[in-house]
Amino acid sequence: MFDAPLTIISEDALDAIHAQAMTILEEIGAEVVHAPAREMLAGLGQKVDGTRVRFDREFVMEQLKLAPSQVTVRGRNPERAVTFGGGTLCMLPPGGSPFVADRERGRRDGMYGDHVEVVKMTQATPLLGAGQSGACEAGDVPETSRHLDLDYSWIRFSDKPYVAYGTSGPRARDSVELAAISRGGRAAIEAEPAIIGIVNPNSPLVWDFLMVDAMWAWAEANQPIAMTPFLLAGATAPVSAAAGLTLQVAEALSGVAIAQAIRPGVGCFFGSFFSGVDMRSGGPSLGMPESVLGSLAGGQLARRYGLPFRGGGGLTSANALDAQAATESAMSLWGTYLSGCDLVLHAAGWLEGGLTCSFEKFALDLEVLRMFQSLRTGLEVDSEHLALETIREEGPGGIFLAADHTLEHFREWVFMSPLFRSQAYPTWTKQGSAETPEVATKEWKKLLESWEDPGLDDGIEAELQEFMAERKRELDE
Amino acid sequence: MFDAPLTIISEDALDAIHAQAMTILEEIGAEVVHAPAREMLAGLGQKVDGTRVRFDREFVMEQLKLAPSQVTVRGRNPERAVTFGGGTLCMLPPGGSPFVADRERGRRDGMYGDHVEVVKMTQATPLLGAGQSGACEAGDVPETSRHLDLDYSWIRFSDKPYVAYGTSGPRARDSVELAAISRGGRAAIEAEPAIIGIVNPNSPLVWDFLMVDAMWAWAEANQPIAMTPFLLAGATAPVSAAAGLTLQVAEALSGVAIAQAIRPGVGCFFGSFFSGVDMRSGGPSLGMPESVLGSLAGGQLARRYGLPFRGGGGLTSANALDAQAATESAMSLWGTYLSGCDLVLHAAGWLEGGLTCSFEKFALDLEVLRMFQSLRTGLEVDSEHLALETIREEGPGGIFLAADHTLEHFREWVFMSPLFRSQAYPTWTKQGSAETPEVATKEWKKLLESWEDPGLDDGIEAELQEFMAERKRELDE
Repeated sequence: MFDAPLTIISEDALDAIHAQAMTILEEIGAEVVHAPAREMLAGLGQKVDGTRVRFDREFVMEQLKLAPSQVTVRGRNPERAVTFGGGTLCMLPPGGSPFVADRERGRRDGMYGDHVEVVKMTQATPLLGAGQSGACEAGDVPETSRHLDLDYSWIRFSDKPYVAYGTSGPRARDSVELAAISRGGRAAIEAEPAIIGIVNPNSPLVWDFLMVDAMWAWAEANQPIAMTPFLLAGATAPVSAAAGLTLQVAEALSGVAIAQAIRPGVGCFFGSFFSGVDMRSGGPSLGMPESVLGSLAGGQLARRYGLPFRGGGGLTSANALDAQAATESAMSLWGTYLSGCDLVLHAAGWLEGGLTCSFEKFALDLEVLRMFQSLRTGLEVDSEHLALETIREEGPGGIFLAADHTLEHFREWVFMSPLFRSQAYPTWTKQGSAETPEVATKEWKKLLESWEDPGLDDGIEAELQEFMAERKRELDE
Repeated sequence: MFDAPLTIISEDALDAIHAQAMTILEEIGAEVVHAPAREMLAGLGQKVDGTRVRFDREFVMEQLKLAPSQVTVRGRNPERAVTFGGGTLCMLPPGGSPFVADRERGRRDGMYGDHVEVVKMTQATPLLGAGQSGACEAGDVPETSRHLDLDYSWIRFSDKPYVAYGTSGPRARDSVELAAISRGGRAAIEAEPAIIGIVNPNSPLVWDFLMVDAMWAWAEANQPIAMTPFLLAGATAPVSAAAGLTLQVAEALSGVAIAQAIRPGVGCFFGSFFSGVDMRSGGPSLGMPESVLGSLAGGQLARRYGLPFRGGGGLTSANALDAQAATESAMSLWGTYLSGCDLVLHAAGWLEGGLTCSFEKFALDLEVLRMFQSLRTGLEVDSEHLALETIREEGPGGIFLAADHTLEHFREWVFMSPLFRSQAYPTWTKQGSAETPEVATKEWKKLLESWEDPGLDDGIEAELQEFMAERKRELDE
């Protein structure tokens, strides 16, 4: 019951946002910098003028009907399949961080070994349901073929579904090839998708070549695509959440229209990444009220359109794992949680507005996700929980610490965490006054050590290596 | 619309909790360690056996009907009156902290001067609607008459309503006297209450003499009383939230029954302070999922009983202003916020499970409260916010940073905070890598400096001094 999404704006307000989004698409249109896509849209009766495409609202809404309301994605392990739609709350590690940081090795450029560690931690925790290729960058492998190594690391060290790295058509096509090999062929992943593609229009209202081409590759292969406008109020969008939402709808639904034209029925997520701009620095200010409201209204819109919803959790602009980081993260996660979100990117490890994948933040975020999981199970009211006889036995002035009922249930019912402790101040100081980051270091190390190799079929491994070797020869020369 | 309280348990579950609470009151009863109260209850037909009182459910529910669903409390300034009931979200500073801490003066025993600083900061911020006497202790004034000084400091340096210090009958009677003087006489505060009393039964199910006597004094004077069981799952309550809620109802409603017997119609808050126990230390673990669920269900029960709801915000067990403190605080505040709470104690400055009033935490919490205030205003969807013409002007690929619409509105519409900044990492390190506590020091100092003396009528001041001098002669000898 607790995971029922929150309603924060009225149907009238949703109507107004929708109507303006349609007006934007019809009268202003979007730049679609991809000739085959423009041709295809022209063929479907849309007005094309140079690179500008103006969309009929009827066409957009018809295309939307083709997109399924639920999408199942699975990696190598069918038991780890995730069905998105209706408030799945599938949590993911960060994506796209050029830097990594931990207390022992410092803040540094991300390398392939760091990426593998994030993959292993993601695999090791039941709190994250899927991965993200490029959780951090891998500065020690050639940029031209890096996407292969990053996608491969998810296939090799994890058996969960993952968001592919593809930031261009060729990369997306490679991600499809790798996923197909991992699952025994293209037919298998077309029947049951293995990966998720993320496309970000260049807000406002530009679909650039790289993104449309990537979308094309994924749609052709029936891999679901998250349409995620990156809207910064006051920079890539007007300075109000309402206006941002109209752009979000216009951009996301034009993406859906294009994807459905490529392959009717391909899964599409309604994506939200809405944030204010810190006018003092020009940077995105994450976890602020605008973002929370944007997430909640975004969730309402996704439900209206019958699409799975993609949001973000644990977002922060802070440069250290301090109270700012924790506050902003909690705010963004509450917004996402209450929005009825399905695919939650960046839910563990995000720091510095995503520039750094922090291992200590990863450990903290997981504990927060564990709290939300516990919240989500809700409050059980049955006779074992009501414990009338225990209350009777102890009576007025009693103490329940040693009651049978307590000893029987506290391990299961009481939330305890290595990071969230209640220690007397003198004990705490005597033990070294450890603050969160210090405790978190122990936790991510423990998590990393707990990774179990999911194994990989020798034949698949050989086929992956062969494909990658061939592509690297083509790309790195 | 956003402040609509969340429903997390069904009517059936509420029925079950209510039914068990009534069974507890009828069959187990409560210890009422206060002879006049027992006599009064016996006279009203309740079963008294030694110090044990067993309450009829019909009696309790009849008494409950006498309690108003809304209560207005005002201090010296009628403009600062607060009406509780229906989700007021009136925020208060902490209460009862023996220690205070700030980065410059360190962690130390609370003194009168510290208390005055908390009063001044509370007065200076519009985010806090009322005060708490004994926000920190005042180790430099005699314990026997300290309550007078602490209550006085609210009257002198603030004109907001406040929670009185009274932790016994005589102290509560003194709090009533001081409040009466400040408002021009007893009749004025009986007609429109000036202070709020907090009573905590000794959970489980003991109403001790001090608390019933304090309740008596406040009820007689028509000052509203918050009935707040302090329930620790696994210590003062069984280890489940459901069982804790049945005790909460039994204790709070027996308190309401007693208060209404003393003075029908006196305001009563349904209070919630529900927390797990950290089984590793035996201390309360605040801000954990059990507390959030307890707050949300508590809010549902308060609405069922038609009583204003008293909760807590910004609670944490952490010993430093670190990510743990911020996470736990945010969790507890979200629970309180979504519960439709009226009176939110400890909403700024609480650290170490309430043992310390931290000035830096005070500044952080205020910024978080400001975020919630901004959330609460919700998302405006009108033509100025929708900004269609601005979107048209910029068009695809535009940038809104210098748009007239942005320049006109960003100051008002974009949430910006000195504590929550988006700075590039190199800039941040060049400027000294300031983490939250450091920034917060500047902020509480700024707040303290911004305090404006609300003034106090010379006649009232003289009368207060005279009363206090007389009482101190009686108490301190």
